[in-house]
Amino acid sequence: MGSHKEVSRRQFLSAAAGSTAASLLARPAFSLAHETFSNAGTLDVGSNAAAMLPWQDQGVINTANSPYAKLHSVPVHAVTIDEGFWSKRRATNVERSIPTMRQELEEHGRMDNFRRLVGKSSEAQKGPYFSDSDIYKWIDSVGWALQSDSLPELRRKTDSMIREVVAIQEPSGYLNTYYQGDRVALRMSQHDQEVGHEMYCLGHMIQGSIAYYRATGDTTLMDAGQRMIDNFVLPNYGPGPNQKPIISGHPEIEMALIELYRTTGKRQYVELAGYVLHGDDRWTIDPQHIKYMFCGIPFPSRTKLEGHAVRAMYACSGATDYYLETGDPAYWKTLNVLWEDLTRRQMYITGGVGARSEGEAFGNAYELPNAQAYGESCAAIGNMMWNWRMLAASGESKFADVIERALYNGINSGMSLDGTTYCYRNPLAFDPATLDGFRGSPNIRNAWYDVTCCPPNLERTFSSLPSYFYSTSKDGLYVHLYDNSNLDWHLQDGTPIKVQQKTNYPWEGSVKLTVNVSEPKEFTLYARIPGWANGASVMVNGKSEAGIKSGEYLPMKRTWKPGDVVVLNFPMHAEIVASNPRVAEDRGKVAVRRGPVIFCMEEVDQSSGIALSDVAITVSERLGKEFQNEYKPDLLGGVEVLRHEGKVFESASAEQPLYMATGAEAPRTRPGTLSFIPYYAWANRKPSAMQVWTPFVRS
Amino acid sequence: MGSHKEVSRRQFLSAAAGSTAASLLARPAFSLAHETFSNAGTLDVGSNAAAMLPWQDQGVINTANSPYAKLHSVPVHAVTIDEGFWSKRRATNVERSIPTMRQELEEHGRMDNFRRLVGKSSEAQKGPYFSDSDIYKWIDSVGWALQSDSLPELRRKTDSMIREVVAIQEPSGYLNTYYQGDRVALRMSQHDQEVGHEMYCLGHMIQGSIAYYRATGDTTLMDAGQRMIDNFVLPNYGPGPNQKPIISGHPEIEMALIELYRTTGKRQYVELAGYVLHGDDRWTIDPQHIKYMFCGIPFPSRTKLEGHAVRAMYACSGATDYYLETGDPAYWKTLNVLWEDLTRRQMYITGGVGARSEGEAFGNAYELPNAQAYGESCAAIGNMMWNWRMLAASGESKFADVIERALYNGINSGMSLDGTTYCYRNPLAFDPATLDGFRGSPNIRNAWYDVTCCPPNLERTFSSLPSYFYSTSKDGLYVHLYDNSNLDWHLQDGTPIKVQQKTNYPWEGSVKLTVNVSEPKEFTLYARIPGWANGASVMVNGKSEAGIKSGEYLPMKRTWKPGDVVVLNFPMHAEIVASNPRVAEDRGKVAVRRGPVIFCMEEVDQSSGIALSDVAITVSERLGKEFQNEYKPDLLGGVEVLRHEGKVFESASAEQPLYMATGAEAPRTRPGTLSFIPYYAWANRKPSAMQVWTPFVRS
Repeated sequence: MGSHKEVSRRQFLSAAAGSTAASLLARPAFSLAHETFSNAGTLDVGSNAAAMLPWQDQGVINTANSPYAKLHSVPVHAVTIDEGFWSKRRATNVERSIPTMRQELEEHGRMDNFRRLVGKSSEAQKGPYFSDSDIYKWIDSVGWALQSDSLPELRRKTDSMIREVVAIQEPSGYLNTYYQGDRVALRMSQHDQEVGHEMYCLGHMIQGSIAYYRATGDTTLMDAGQRMIDNFVLPNYGPGPNQKPIISGHPEIEMALIELYRTTGKRQYVELAGYVLHGDDRWTIDPQHIKYMFCGIPFPSRTKLEGHAVRAMYACSGATDYYLETGDPAYWKTLNVLWEDLTRRQMYITGGVGARSEGEAFGNAYELPNAQAYGESCAAIGNMMWNWRMLAASGESKFADVIERALYNGINSGMSLDGTTYCYRNPLAFDPATLDGFRGSPNIRNAWYDVTCCPPNLERTFSSLPSYFYSTSKDGLYVHLYDNSNLDWHLQDGTPIKVQQKTNYPWEGSVKLTVNVSEPKEFTLYARIPGWANGASVMVNGKSEAGIKSGEYLPMKRTWKPGDVVVLNFPMHAEIVASNPRVAEDRGKVAVRRGPVIFCMEEVDQSSGIALSDVAITVSERLGKEFQNEYKPDLLGGVEVLRHEGKVFESASAEQPLYMATGAEAPRTRPGTLSFIPYYAWANRKPSAMQVWTPFVRS
Repeated sequence: MGSHKEVSRRQFLSAAAGSTAASLLARPAFSLAHETFSNAGTLDVGSNAAAMLPWQDQGVINTANSPYAKLHSVPVHAVTIDEGFWSKRRATNVERSIPTMRQELEEHGRMDNFRRLVGKSSEAQKGPYFSDSDIYKWIDSVGWALQSDSLPELRRKTDSMIREVVAIQEPSGYLNTYYQGDRVALRMSQHDQEVGHEMYCLGHMIQGSIAYYRATGDTTLMDAGQRMIDNFVLPNYGPGPNQKPIISGHPEIEMALIELYRTTGKRQYVELAGYVLHGDDRWTIDPQHIKYMFCGIPFPSRTKLEGHAVRAMYACSGATDYYLETGDPAYWKTLNVLWEDLTRRQMYITGGVGARSEGEAFGNAYELPNAQAYGESCAAIGNMMWNWRMLAASGESKFADVIERALYNGINSGMSLDGTTYCYRNPLAFDPATLDGFRGSPNIRNAWYDVTCCPPNLERTFSSLPSYFYSTSKDGLYVHLYDNSNLDWHLQDGTPIKVQQKTNYPWEGSVKLTVNVSEPKEFTLYARIPGWANGASVMVNGKSEAGIKSGEYLPMKRTWKPGDVVVLNFPMHAEIVASNPRVAEDRGKVAVRRGPVIFCMEEVDQSSGIALSDVAITVSERLGKEFQNEYKPDLLGGVEVLRHEGKVFESASAEQPLYMATGAEAPRTRPGTLSFIPYYAWANRKPSAMQVWTPFVRS
C-alpha cells in the first residue's frame, strides 16, 4: 500500500461513532465485514438478505425486492440473442469494441493512473479528473458480457485490472486516482464536489462492480466501493451536524447507491441516495450550477429538464430508482412531469437528447437544431436507462417506446459498424466541411476521446441488452424488444418458461413467439405493440386477438401450453413524419421512419453531384406509400434502403445569394430519386453530408 | 505618481536603442516629444504633418492622406441631422444614453479602478480585466458628440475623467488598471496577451482619444496613448531580437494604430499595425485560439470568417485600414474573400453577425439560427466599421448597403428607444419564457452588463453617425445615407458645398437633395441607389436621369449651379424576402423588408391569444403587394406598421405532439391578420415573443 497510513479498526470505529445524530439519515449501525481488504471476497448480504436473488439471477437492475416495481428484470444470461439484427452488434462489441477500448485505456495511461499511486508507474496523471470512471464503465461492459459468454482471457485481464484498482484504496476507504497523491487537500471540498466528479467516479465503480459481481460472483471491486461508502462517505458526509454536505456534482451515485442496496440489502444506501437527491442547503450553490448539474436542490422541485443532459438523465434514473424503493409520490409526480417535458418538447426523433453543445445541455422547449445538435451518446443511453426504470415502475409501453427509439437510433448511431470508433455527438445533419465532428475535428467518429465517457457507455449498453428484452410481473411476462432470441427463465412463481422469437425485425414486421412451459400454466403474456405500429395484428395459435392498441402492451391472459405460438404482425412500411411546428429547424421538413428505425440521407448515396441542401422530397396525399424498399445484405452490415421521388434544385443553392426578395417563389427543380439509409448506419463510409430532416414539396 | 519609479530620458533612449534591427519593423527614429507628461498638450504632428488636415476637419476615419482611399470622410460637424428618423435617436443618445452610461460606469467602480492606483479609492478592482476599454469607448462617444453640439457640462466631466485616467500612467508609459498594482508580473505574458486585452484597452484608449481630439483639439488622452506606444510598446515589443512578440488577442489595436498614424503622421504606427496583423511565429499559439482570436497568423492567410465575431470584424477593420495606407494587394484580396463569406454565408438579414453564443462566434456557413442567434451589438457595429473602410477603399455601393442594413436593424436594435437599456444579443426570434435574454436573464435589454462593451459602442456609433452620410472623392461628392440633414463642407479642391436633404426616409422613398455651390462648378455627385431599390428613379431639376442601377452609386457629372435640385425616388413598399435554402431555420419561412428596414412580428401586436409559433403568412403570386402600411406617430417613437393576411392554426402547436406520422398534411388553419413592426423597435414594451422569419403558406 505504499505510503498509505494504516488506520486501526479502533480508530475507524471511533471516527464512525463521531458522525451519528444524522436526522435525515438515521441509519442503522452497519456491517464492517468488508473493512479489511479482500481480493476475492464473497458477499455478506447482511440481515436483509433473506429474499435476495442469487447474484447470477439479478438483471440489469434488480427490482426483485423493489416494492414499487411492477416489473422485474430478467438476468442477461436468461436471454440468448440469435443471428439477426442485434447479434452482429453484440458480437462486434465483445470481439472488437471491448478489447480495443481496453487497449486505448491502457495506451492513454488510464490504468497507469492507478499504478502510479502504488509506485508501479512513473507516468503523470493522465486524462481529466473523472478518468477512473472510464475504467469502471469498461469493467461494467465486461461484467454484462461475461453473463452471455465465457470469455476467460477477458475475465483474466479484468480481474487483473480490478486488483490494480483496489490496490490503491486508502485505509480510510478513499479511492480516486485524481484526489490521491498530490491533491488530497482538495478532496470533497464544495468546489471539487461540484466539478470534481468524486461521487460520480464512485458511482461508476459501484455500477461496474455490480455488473461484474452479477456475472462472476466476485465482490473484489464491490467490496472496495462499499468500503469507500461505508468507511469514508457515511461517517463523514451527510446531513448530520458533524458531517459535511454531499453534492453529487454529476449525478450517477444515486442510481449506484440504490443498485448497491438491491445487491447487498443495506438500506442505508437508499437513505444516502435520498439525501443526495434532496440536496443539502447548508451549502449555497450558484443557481446556474444547480441548473447545470441537475442536483443540489430537492429533486421533486424540478419542473423541467435543463442543464447538462447526461447529468439530468442520470439524475432522473437515480430518482426513479429511489421511487421504486420508497414509493415517494412527490418523486413519481415530478418524474412524469419531466418525462412529458422530454417527450413533448426536448427529445430528438432519434431518442437523442441534449440540443446544445454549450454546456452539453438541454436547450429551450422545442430547441432541437439538427447540424448543431449535441445529442451525446451518453445522454441517449441515460434516456434509455431512465425509461427502463420508468417502465419497471409502471409497466407502461410508452416508456418502452422511448427505449426502442433511443436504442435503434440515437444510441446505435454512437458506435461505428466495425465497433472501433464512436460518436460523442450524434447530430441529425452533418457536413464534413464544417469540422464539427467533435470540438474542431472533421471526424464524427473517433477511436479515442480524451473525455472517453461515451465509448464504454455504449459497450456496457450493448453488453447488457439481453436483459432489456423481457420482464416478469406478478401475473406474467412482458415482451419489450423483438429480435431472434431465446428466453430461458421462470415466472415470478418459479414456473420455468422458455420463449423463442423468430423474426426479421426491424426490417420486417412479423414476429413469431413460441412459448414453452413444461406443463399448461395460466399467466398473462404482455406483448408490446409499438407506438408506431398502427394496424398491428396478433394471432395466438392462428386465431386473431382483439383489442390491439399501438403504444400499449397487449395482455394475453390464458392457460399457455407447451409450443403455443404467438404471431405479431406490425405494419412495416416507411412513413413520413413531421415535427411540431415549434421546432424551428424542422418546419417545412419531414423525416422518414420505418418501424423503429429512423432513416437519413447520406450524400454518398445520392445521384452524382446532388447536394443534400439542394433536394426536397415530394410528398403526396399518399404520404410515404410511394417509398420503395430493398434489403441490401452487403451494404453497411445489411440494411434496408429506401427510395422516394424528390425534386432537385436546377441551380445549386451555394450559388444563390443569402437573401432574395420575391424568394417565396418556388425555386426551379427537376425530378430526382432520393435514397435513404438507417440513421444509425451513417458515417461508416467516406465522409459525406447527412440529414435526417428533408424539406418537402407537395406533388 | 505614487510608487511608480521614474525612468530617466537617458534610460529610456537606451532601452529604445536596444530594440533596433527589426527586419519587419524597420522604423525610423521617432519623436519623443510627448515623453514628459502633459495634461493638455497640443499635438506635435512631426515632419509628416505637411498635408495633415486640421484636427477639427478629420472625419470618423481620416483618410485624407491615405493613398489607397478613393473616398475621404467628412467631419461629424460638417453634417447637421435635422428632425427626422435619426434625430430622435441622436438626441436620446446625447441626452439620456451618454449621461446614464457615465453614471453606470461610476456606480460600478470603473473609474475607481483608476483612482485606486493613485490612492484616491480603496475599492477593489471592479469588472473584468478589460474594463478600462469601456471608459475609453464612452469617451469616444463623447468626442463625436462634442463635434455636433456644445455640451460644456459633459465636456467638463469628461476632461476630469481623462485627467484621472492619465494620472495613473507609469513613467514607462504603461497604463492599464488591471495590470498595475498587484498584477504587474502578469503584464504582456503570452497568456495575458492572448486573453488579457492589454492591447485592446490601449487601442480603445487611442480611438477614444482621437475622437476627443477631433472634437476639442485636446491631446491629453492621446498623449498618454502615444506614450504607452512610444515608450512602453515600441522599444520592448515587436519583431526585433531583443523584443518580445505582440499578440493583439482581441483585435482593436490595429485600427487604432493606423488612425493614430492618420492623426500624427508617424509612420511607425502603420508598421506596428502591419506587424501585429502579420503575427509573430516566435510564439506558438493553439490553433483553436488563432481561430477564436482572429489574429496571430498573417491576416492574408485567412480564408473565412470564424471565431469570435467582434474580434473578426475588428481585425478586418484594422486590415482594411492597413490596406488603405499600404495598398498591399494580398490584404485586398483576402478582405474581399472574407466579405463574400460574410454576405453570402454568414450575415443575418439584420446585418448582425456571430451566430453562436458559444464563443460569441461565427458558426459554419449558413448557420444562422434565429432564437439562438448571438448577434452581439458590438459585432454589428464592427460590421459597419469594416464596411465603412471597404467603402473608402473602393467607392462601391455594396459596402454602403451593408452599412445601411446593419445601421437600421442589427445596430439600431441594440439600444432601447428611451436610450437607457441595451441589447448585448440581438436574436431574430425571442420568447421571454426562455430566459435567453442574456446568460440566464429574461431581459434582452439591460441598463448594465458586467461586460459592458456594447452600450458605449452603440453610443459612439450614434455620436459619429453624421460622418457616415457623405464622402468626398477626387471628382466629387458621395451621398451614402438619407435623412433630413444639411452638409456644409467643401470638395477636395476646396470648393465650398452645401447639400440639404429633405425626406421622410426610411418611411417614404422620396429624397430631395438641394445642392448649393457659391458659383457653378463641375463635379460628380454620386447618389447611392440602395441594393433593395429596384425601379428607383432620379430627377435633376425635374429631368429624369438615365442609367439608374440599384446597388450602385448613380454618378451625376455636371456643372452644378446654386440651388440645383436632385429628387431621388426609391420604391418604398414591403417585400417578402426568402433566405438561401441552406439556412436550416429559415426554410419555408419569409422575412419582411420595407426599404432598408427589416420588420418583425411581436406577439403583443397580434390578435388576442395568437402565438407567433401558430401563424403563417399567406404568400400569393403578388408577393407582398398585399401589405397594408400605416405610419403610427405615437407607436414606438413613430414607426410604420405593416399588416398582411395570414393563417392561424386551429389547434395550438403547444398542444400537439413533438412528432407526428403523416404530419406532412397541412394543419387546419383559419384566416387572420398579422401585424409587423420594425425589428429595431422590438422589446420596447412588455415582454413579448418576437420573430423576424415567419412560415409562409401559398394562397
